[in-house]
Amino acid sequence: MLSRSHHSLRALSRTGRALAVRIDSPLSQQTVRRKSGPYGYTQAKALVFSKNGEPSDVLQLHTFSISPSISSKSVLLRSLAAPINPADINTIQGTYGSQPSFTSLIGTSSPSVIPGNEGVFEVVSTGDPASPIRKGDWVIPAVAQFGTWRTHAVAELDQVLKIDKEGLRATQAATISVNPSTAYRILRAYGPSTGVGGIGMRPLEVGSGEWFIQNGANSGVGRAAIQLGKLWGLRSINIVRERSSPEETEALKAELIGLGADVVVTETQFLSREWRDQLAEITNKGRDQIALGLNCVGGKSATALARSLSEGATMVSYGGMAKQPVALPVGLLIFKDIRFVGFWLSRWNQQDVAGRKHMINDIVDLIRQGKFQDVPLDEVAWNWDTDISTLAQEVQGGLQGFRRGKGIFVFGDT
Amino acid sequence: MLSRSHHSLRALSRTGRALAVRIDSPLSQQTVRRKSGPYGYTQAKALVFSKNGEPSDVLQLHTFSISPSISSKSVLLRSLAAPINPADINTIQGTYGSQPSFTSLIGTSSPSVIPGNEGVFEVVSTGDPASPIRKGDWVIPAVAQFGTWRTHAVAELDQVLKIDKEGLRATQAATISVNPSTAYRILRAYGPSTGVGGIGMRPLEVGSGEWFIQNGANSGVGRAAIQLGKLWGLRSINIVRERSSPEETEALKAELIGLGADVVVTETQFLSREWRDQLAEITNKGRDQIALGLNCVGGKSATALARSLSEGATMVSYGGMAKQPVALPVGLLIFKDIRFVGFWLSRWNQQDVAGRKHMINDIVDLIRQGKFQDVPLDEVAWNWDTDISTLAQEVQGGLQGFRRGKGIFVFGDT
Repeated sequence: MLSRSHHSLRALSRTGRALAVRIDSPLSQQTVRRKSGPYGYTQAKALVFSKNGEPSDVLQLHTFSISPSISSKSVLLRSLAAPINPADINTIQGTYGSQPSFTSLIGTSSPSVIPGNEGVFEVVSTGDPASPIRKGDWVIPAVAQFGTWRTHAVAELDQVLKIDKEGLRATQAATISVNPSTAYRILRAYGPSTGVGGIGMRPLEVGSGEWFIQNGANSGVGRAAIQLGKLWGLRSINIVRERSSPEETEALKAELIGLGADVVVTETQFLSREWRDQLAEITNKGRDQIALGLNCVGGKSATALARSLSEGATMVSYGGMAKQPVALPVGLLIFKDIRFVGFWLSRWNQQDVAGRKHMINDIVDLIRQGKFQDVPLDEVAWNWDTDISTLAQEVQGGLQGFRRGKGIFVFGDT
Repeated sequence: MLSRSHHSLRALSRTGRALAVRIDSPLSQQTVRRKSGPYGYTQAKALVFSKNGEPSDVLQLHTFSISPSISSKSVLLRSLAAPINPADINTIQGTYGSQPSFTSLIGTSSPSVIPGNEGVFEVVSTGDPASPIRKGDWVIPAVAQFGTWRTHAVAELDQVLKIDKEGLRATQAATISVNPSTAYRILRAYGPSTGVGGIGMRPLEVGSGEWFIQNGANSGVGRAAIQLGKLWGLRSINIVRERSSPEETEALKAELIGLGADVVVTETQFLSREWRDQLAEITNKGRDQIALGLNCVGGKSATALARSLSEGATMVSYGGMAKQPVALPVGLLIFKDIRFVGFWLSRWNQQDVAGRKHMINDIVDLIRQGKFQDVPLDEVAWNWDTDISTLAQEVQGGLQGFRRGKGIFVFGDT
């Protein structure tokens, strides 16, 4: 299943017209189903939840029809790929920072929410023939909590952002708006104190070789930060958890070095007594400042990260995988002037709509130029006949330990 | 002793010429001792430590002579009053953020440090008759770790800042540069997020009635924040520890209300389940933002303080009385966008010399106008014959529980 889907997706992204091909083909029953009935209704499916809980307990697969008569300000979309991000799982569990509204818009018996913040869609039809977004274009959500875990959607034009799909795979387009965007924003906005009262701050200087340090460095954000940091002339110290064997750990280190990491250490090395000396060696006895820390773990790892920072540095938390609070010795705050802030991409995007558009285009260009590599993916095929238990288990699986890669729904025959 | 010293100091500050009076008086042996020998040497004493440890273990009283021939850029000073601040005790213990250099400048057998960051001195003589600072003027240290726990000092002109002593008591002049300055800076510089990416921030708006919240509200900084906040049209929620009886707790609450506090609650109330509802009531169901928190405690109190803040607020830590780290749930950082920073007055003063001068003058004016009340003081008389055990015990006493007031050395016959 997985390889078949993977294959069909590749075909799709190479031609960029796969959908049309399939629609025209009498061989595909799914195609007929999608345009079923005399009135041209599209048959769609969506993962939904009507109450918070564990994904395997609360997710349901809901089938519904989309009318062909969409408004002139709308587009009908077919899903190509949609990642399974930790934020999506936390939204289902009810532990995320914001809770989408439960609605009956797609006809579920109880008001429900479609999870999924990120994904890429192909435009199937437009309400207005002169619409700036055209049939065959690729779009990503322009708003938070769009609900991407579904086969089709009708969206307002201002709810989506067109992506130049030229040379892009659907899985690449589907995974730029959360992880690379988070790394991009943090590296471009946060950094050392400007030293004049208050909490004034400047970002790390492009081309300077200034250091940043991050835990969870093999995560999607971590890999993006390594690559973007390298592209922007910065240097990185990267902390990863040990894998199940020393060989796998070494392989992961080599992989991150290959992406552009300057230093990779394991959590064990990082939390050991020797770390202080190793850090002194890396930073030229402290003469090179480490003015930015990226934390997605919390607990001991976050405290150790904070201790590794130079005076006046900023630690940005964007996740809390360890589910433990960040414990800060007061001296780090007062005497070392380390500033602790959080980063939430959804909030930033809301505040900076134009900036987001620019950033997405910038990232897409880097991918197209081969300067930015994808995170390893664990593709989950979603076809018309894929059942709820398969889908829900794949979501639930995202919670457990070491995944082979980032989970992502890849839509085949839907 | 204490009352006598207190009395002599009052006399001194009322006339402003007490030193000259005593020098001229044949009744005072101390006066003779101070100007002893044919060469006019000044006999001086200083508390010193040559290694870090508990004050009662490591403090020594060192006697030394000051030559009458001082450079044209120097002034000879006689101490009037010098507070015992927690930072001074932490410096002796070796747990402060910066360690002064141990020197042999005053002739101790081992290199030593004179503790004391804050105090007020009267100018006894100047190296240059045309000096901008004149005999009889009052000065406070312009630099950190000046070493104020001594009877006399020779200082460079740029190491001190002249205070307009008109209408001021010495104990008032001695206590403006740490606590009121800390409250002043924090209230005037820190506040809510400006909401556009990064960590942009604006201070609370003067005259707006915007709220701040603080723990340790009966501390020197806390009382200053209440008063300055009131003067600047802000509102405060103040958390205090219970006193030894309900009556004393109520008396303390009444005292802080008298200073201008809008709300005073005990730590127990603050850490209880009912606090959330009480907070909702105070803040008009959350419509009034609490955009600034002042933390000098740490531990649970700091976490509860952080939870009481509104989205995008800043928590400034300037102390850690509980000697426990600040534990921050990651969600407060990411979703509520609470920013955690430290405040260190010494650093700020270094970065903003002109601003400090302006601030000190502003505070002195408020005191003169009767708009700013002193913190309760626990005066410790320091005369020529006060022995080391008395002085060291008073310093050590500053570490224990509820002091009657802020400890301050008041110099009598020295």
